[in-house]
Amino acid sequence: MQEVYINLGPRSYSIHIGPGLLPRLGEYLRGFPFTRRALLVTNPTVGSLYASVVEAALAGAGFEVIRSEMPDGEEYKILATAEKLYDLAYTRELDRRSPVVALGGGVVGDLAGFVAATYLRGVPFIQVPTTLLAQVDSSVGGKVAVNHPRGKNIIGAFYQPRLVLADLGVLKTLDPREVRAGLAEVIKYGIIADGGFFTWLEENLEDLLALDAEALTHAVAVSCRIKAQVVREDETEQGRRAILNFGHTVGHAVEALTGYAAYRHGEAVAMGMVAAARLAVALDMLKEGEAARIERLIRRAGLPVEMPAGLSPDELLDSMRRDKKVLAGRLTFVLPVAVGRVEIVRDVPEEAVRRLLISAGTKGDPGGGR
Amino acid sequence: MQEVYINLGPRSYSIHIGPGLLPRLGEYLRGFPFTRRALLVTNPTVGSLYASVVEAALAGAGFEVIRSEMPDGEEYKILATAEKLYDLAYTRELDRRSPVVALGGGVVGDLAGFVAATYLRGVPFIQVPTTLLAQVDSSVGGKVAVNHPRGKNIIGAFYQPRLVLADLGVLKTLDPREVRAGLAEVIKYGIIADGGFFTWLEENLEDLLALDAEALTHAVAVSCRIKAQVVREDETEQGRRAILNFGHTVGHAVEALTGYAAYRHGEAVAMGMVAAARLAVALDMLKEGEAARIERLIRRAGLPVEMPAGLSPDELLDSMRRDKKVLAGRLTFVLPVAVGRVEIVRDVPEEAVRRLLISAGTKGDPGGGR
Ligand SMILES: NC(=O)c1ccc[n+]([C@@H]2O[C@H](COP(=O)([O-])OP(=O)(O)OC[C@H]3O[C@@H](n4cnc5c(N)ncnc54)[C@H](O)[C@@H]3O)[C@@H](O)[C@H]2O)c1
Ligand SMILES: NC(=O)c1ccc[n+]([C@@H]2O[C@H](COP(=O)([O-])OP(=O)(O)OC[C@H]3O[C@@H](n4cnc5c(N)ncnc54)[C@H](O)[C@@H]3O)[C@@H](O)[C@H]2O)c1
Ligand SMILES: [Zn+2]
Ligand SMILES: [Zn+2]
Repeated sequence: MQEVYINLGPRSYSIHIGPGLLPRLGEYLRGFPFTRRALLVTNPTVGSLYASVVEAALAGAGFEVIRSEMPDGEEYKILATAEKLYDLAYTRELDRRSPVVALGGGVVGDLAGFVAATYLRGVPFIQVPTTLLAQVDSSVGGKVAVNHPRGKNIIGAFYQPRLVLADLGVLKTLDPREVRAGLAEVIKYGIIADGGFFTWLEENLEDLLALDAEALTHAVAVSCRIKAQVVREDETEQGRRAILNFGHTVGHAVEALTGYAAYRHGEAVAMGMVAAARLAVALDMLKEGEAARIERLIRRAGLPVEMPAGLSPDELLDSMRRDKKVLAGRLTFVLPVAVGRVEIVRDVPEEAVRRLLISAGTKGDPGGGR
Repeated sequence: MQEVYINLGPRSYSIHIGPGLLPRLGEYLRGFPFTRRALLVTNPTVGSLYASVVEAALAGAGFEVIRSEMPDGEEYKILATAEKLYDLAYTRELDRRSPVVALGGGVVGDLAGFVAATYLRGVPFIQVPTTLLAQVDSSVGGKVAVNHPRGKNIIGAFYQPRLVLADLGVLKTLDPREVRAGLAEVIKYGIIADGGFFTWLEENLEDLLALDAEALTHAVAVSCRIKAQVVREDETEQGRRAILNFGHTVGHAVEALTGYAAYRHGEAVAMGMVAAARLAVALDMLKEGEAARIERLIRRAGLPVEMPAGLSPDELLDSMRRDKKVLAGRLTFVLPVAVGRVEIVRDVPEEAVRRLLISAGTKGDPGGGR
């Protein structure tokens, strides 16, 4: 068991990390001044596995639970789904102190969080993340959102949860591919902020892949601490928080151009991290050996390191320019200068990026991929 | 010209108040680190009168202006309208530093503010309020919202503008009934927080009704200062901010039961303030003479002081209990103890409220209204 305290003044909260926590949710909520009626948001996949445990835990703390299952899938992380939750919350007379509890991966967390942020201008929000990605990334940092028909996370808010409960036991039912996708973000934290953690990952990767509780507790706690530290310095994402987007500039472009279907987010980020490391080498910012370590760990985690063949560099560049983190069309990259440290580089020469994309075996490469 | 500085740490901003300010919007924006593409949200009524001036002002400061006119009316302050603005913002590639400018009354301000609060998790928001109500109330305090089909302002956020420009000249084209409705909130500020200001209002009411620029500047500036002071002590509405709801418990119920059609919000608040003053007298909290002063000023402002005949006390009570500010069904009222000071009274005995409603000539009064 570990507790990570996120110090954000009046918006501070704790992340509890360990196996077997779900049944204890009620205890953790006892101290809060909440109305005893909770909206539990989940989906059928997660709900059928864990909702009854969570409901019992909430009931044990005196809560009446209103359960809502949104359909499973990113395509339901939209305003129309949020509207159904507003309807339900209003009909069931949830008030400004009634907690919204998100039980699920990042999709459920982002959507339920957006509803919590906006229903009655904000009600208490509790995260019970059930994917590794949600435990190390989406449930920390206060970003909530729904998608726009034409872009991801276009409509959202910065809204902190009051409590996060990361039960590592639930990862056992998760598709191993989802575990690996979550690991991509864990590896990212090592690269951007903590070389020692990266080394620990090199040494403990097998335990993590085997879902060893002790190794997971450490990895999730360190990841949350790193993310929280970065977020704390920059809660509303004006500057330094951008380092969390390491691997994401290329990653998002790959996701967008493959219709968000071929790759899990973490897989696209894995490709993006390798691409960023190579770009850093090309720009003489990073030693080849360091880039090789990054690539090796990502490969060992069962994640892709090469961009998919067949994507055109022009389309990729176009998509990067449209990334909402890009200001006024300038190409910005987060690039490693060592394992454990990155820099935000604005105005990266387009030619360097194009060369990289071509050598990565995309359409522009007349010689084919490697 | 007056400037009211709203000190909210990193979310501080200024309200500029005076006649003839619209053409100067560009100057005021010069210092901000905004992308030079702005989304101007207005409606056909206000747009046909003032959009070209504002567009010219923005263009003068180097902005490309994307104008969007939402239909005029409270019934369009809904998510569907917000979605159109998200579409437009996304299609026209507005980025995280592109300001959203609201030109209009509280409806336009609340809706555009909600979009600004949630598009890309928050972009800069500029308020150019064009009704008296918007100038003294809805543009100050950071509340933004859209309506739910079944309840007002159910979906929203707390989100501060970066600048408010209150041009008093635009009030000349406003329906005088709207001016009086706005005055109800001005009078409210005197009652809840500043007896001296209330006396000033007693002495200068005719000038205000005649839209005298100097009198208006003073009244709007004092109103904004009072609201800002209250909000500052309680930015996210946990406690003391509730005093701003003086007159609103009954007012909202009257609005709800008359389908938001018969009365302007300020008119309903006027009735609610008189009802609250009478309730305070009945509960021995306020001297009769003070209640009479309140009633007299409201009447002189051309605002209604009696509740509409024909509303049933039970329905009114029911509606008050459903008010979203009510926690767990308890009846809470903001009641004056003197002109210039109010108290938040929880658990007001239902019988006292019922007696008041009956004597006010609603359905429960077998003898008819007075
Ligand atoms: N808010 C943020 O800061 C942030 C950060 C990163 C990603 N995200 C968002 O997170 C979303 C992706 O989240 P995700 O990767 O968790 O995907 P997800 O929520 O879609 O979950 C993946 C799949 O696993 C299932 N599942 C979840 N927990 C399970 C369990 N314990 N056992 C069995 N199945 C389980 C889900 O039903 C789903 O089918 C995206 O929408 C992304 O935008 C948000
Ligand atoms: N955010 C807050 O804190 C807050 C506080 C109070 C009220 N509100 C909201 O404000 C809204 C009511 O605002 P309102 O009273 O300004 O109504 P409104 O915005 O509907 O404006 C009233 C009418 O006047 C017209 N108009 C506006 N300016 C004009 C001008 N200068 N000349 C001619 N016509 C003009 C409008 O087109 C409209 O027809 C409600 O939705 C209410 O919920 C919000
Ligand atoms: Zn990510
Ligand atoms: Zn009001």
